[in-house]
Amino acid sequence: MKMTSYTDYSLRALLYIAGHKDRLVTISEIAEFHNVSRNHMTKVINNLSRNDFIATVRGKSGGIRLSREPEDIILADVIYNTEQHMNLAECFDRENNTCPIIGGCKLMKILYEARRGFMSPFENATLANIL
Amino acid sequence: MKMTSYTDYSLRALLYIAGHKDRLVTISEIAEFHNVSRNHMTKVINNLSRNDFIATVRGKSGGIRLSREPEDIILADVIYNTEQHMNLAECFDRENNTCPIIGGCKLMKILYEARRGFMSPFENATLANIL
Repeated sequence: MKMTSYTDYSLRALLYIAGHKDRLVTISEIAEFHNVSRNHMTKVINNLSRNDFIATVRGKSGGIRLSREPEDIILADVIYNTEQHMNLAECFDRENNTCPIIGGCKLMKILYEARRGFMSPFENATLANIL
Repeated sequence: MKMTSYTDYSLRALLYIAGHKDRLVTISEIAEFHNVSRNHMTKVINNLSRNDFIATVRGKSGGIRLSREPEDIILADVIYNTEQHMNLAECFDRENNTCPIIGGCKLMKILYEARRGFMSPFENATLANIL
């Protein structure tokens, strides 16, 4: 059980940007700092931008900044956005489920509890809390 | 974020075996019931047997049964056993971590909380609870 590297690097990028809020930062410097390819970091940043966690300033002295205050970026929102899905097991996807015991399965209740338990700390924390 | 199919099928196999505790069951019937290859289910069963969740009776009329009462099989023990690791992010593996902010990172605290929150329902439930 792990988070995707996409989520991991999204959180790290936000931390980096928030940690340099006195200036604009570039994709290249975040990529270099975290020793990840510029290509991968570009995807991460584009997604964060598309979902309005960050804003891009174009031009020669352009760069990236947060689009909201760190206090207003709830970590759970980032994770729901970057994790492809939060389906712990195939039964979470009712349409494609093949498990024959789905109707009376009591494990599902525990799986949902586990997912809630997992997300709860992220629901209650903002980017400001981890700076 | 998802559990491995190995964990999923291990739990399903245990449910099946516990649901037929009046007799021995075979790998083939569990595989057929859950529409998974016999090969995959054999690996699942061998691992459950190696870790003493189930016992195998050899011979012509042999088969599989639980090696303990369902009340004595804690779901978290199964999951710790079947998930390759519970490293939510690379910093959970101190030896191979490359993240440069590991020293002062406050996100880690939340990641550990999330893992505890995830496992808690499984720590508090036995196979008997989900039959």
